[in-house]
Amino acid sequence: MQRKIEVCLTPALLDLYTIEESIVVVIDILRATSSMVYGIDNGAAAIIPVSQVEDCLSYSGLDYLLAAERNGEVVEGYDFGNSPFSYIKEKVQGKTVVLTTTNGTKALHMARARAHQVVIGSFLNLDALCNWLKSQDKDVLLLCAGWKDQFNLEDTLFAGAVVTQLRTSFSHFDDSSVAAEDLYAIAKTDLRGYIAKSSHSHRLAALNIEEDVRFCLQLNLCDVIPVLTGDKLVALPLAKPVVR
Amino acid sequence: MQRKIEVCLTPALLDLYTIEESIVVVIDILRATSSMVYGIDNGAAAIIPVSQVEDCLSYSGLDYLLAAERNGEVVEGYDFGNSPFSYIKEKVQGKTVVLTTTNGTKALHMARARAHQVVIGSFLNLDALCNWLKSQDKDVLLLCAGWKDQFNLEDTLFAGAVVTQLRTSFSHFDDSSVAAEDLYAIAKTDLRGYIAKSSHSHRLAALNIEEDVRFCLQLNLCDVIPVLTGDKLVALPLAKPVVR
Repeated sequence: MQRKIEVCLTPALLDLYTIEESIVVVIDILRATSSMVYGIDNGAAAIIPVSQVEDCLSYSGLDYLLAAERNGEVVEGYDFGNSPFSYIKEKVQGKTVVLTTTNGTKALHMARARAHQVVIGSFLNLDALCNWLKSQDKDVLLLCAGWKDQFNLEDTLFAGAVVTQLRTSFSHFDDSSVAAEDLYAIAKTDLRGYIAKSSHSHRLAALNIEEDVRFCLQLNLCDVIPVLTGDKLVALPLAKPVVR
Repeated sequence: MQRKIEVCLTPALLDLYTIEESIVVVIDILRATSSMVYGIDNGAAAIIPVSQVEDCLSYSGLDYLLAAERNGEVVEGYDFGNSPFSYIKEKVQGKTVVLTTTNGTKALHMARARAHQVVIGSFLNLDALCNWLKSQDKDVLLLCAGWKDQFNLEDTLFAGAVVTQLRTSFSHFDDSSVAAEDLYAIAKTDLRGYIAKSSHSHRLAALNIEEDVRFCLQLNLCDVIPVLTGDKLVALPLAKPVVR
């Protein structure tokens, strides 16, 4: 089968893509999709991405954790934001996290409206994601959440990491896939150093989240692939469970 | 002075940028802005970019040449399209070319509506453009025309070539500038080979315009910088004319 892989560099370009029969991978490396992967891997029952901060409030009870981030910071009054260190087993196991973030949840909702299937990607589950994508018979769109509709380096680099692994299984690549793959080839030996060149990096430095950044750039810490089912992200049942 | 350089990867993202005080460089390497530079360098009195094919028809008379391209081909009944070989001295000297193209003229009109100043970039006038940009006291936005609002490699590579030359004169760079610069570093020793990886390249191959592509990838064949003055592109008066 001839399969196509494309990279949508920001959600502002999503309308240009036909995704009704595609798997869309939502990518918001710093930090939403990294934390989603880590949270599901740590036993969160589900993560519910919502668009607005106020939407979190319609969920209440002991089983819910309310997480809200805007402009990189935890919104006052919420349990936590999108730092991966808030998604550890001790906090999230058995819980449902209701999450809103500046970029990642917006991209998720845009994809959900049209895509065949929506899954979550991050460096933390890179290999698991790529192996699963190879085994499917669908075209793939890698959707970078960017920063407020602008292109960003870290999401593009991750898209490039996926393209690199999928190159032999797919036959059609758009120009942004080619660019992302080549940028990853430059950056992969020192992801942290490379991302230091980005404007986002200056913003992150100001937020004092260096540990978060380093955490989110680790490869293959997790085997799960969060998949959107209804309005919830849950662990995708994998045909061959990985023994750890 | 602290100056900023940004790369807008497709016209669909232009609204994200504040350009009221900026110089915008419109880039449509294959082939509109290459041909504009070549035509002005060859003595065209002016080039008038228009949005619609029909708009060309409101210009008539011996002094006008009507040029229309859609989807890479000359529109039937027009003098020529956007092949640089149509913009030679024998054809354009002293004439005004009224031109509409799929991507380049659209990007031009979008920029014109808001920018402080709009100029035209191509590999053909790379050094002249960069030297002039260095001498100005404005922020710079490099606007890639792309292909039907999608990212493309050749326009991004040219943006990267400009960023490379301007790095020491500017202090702020966005993430797309960083990406464009690094892609150009990979591609610069064999631009034609690199662009062969692009999806646009397959489309161009189908159009049988290999000679056009090679022509448009030549560096510094021209010294002019076309600048938008009213509704016309004319040669920017340069402080120190280059003797050739």
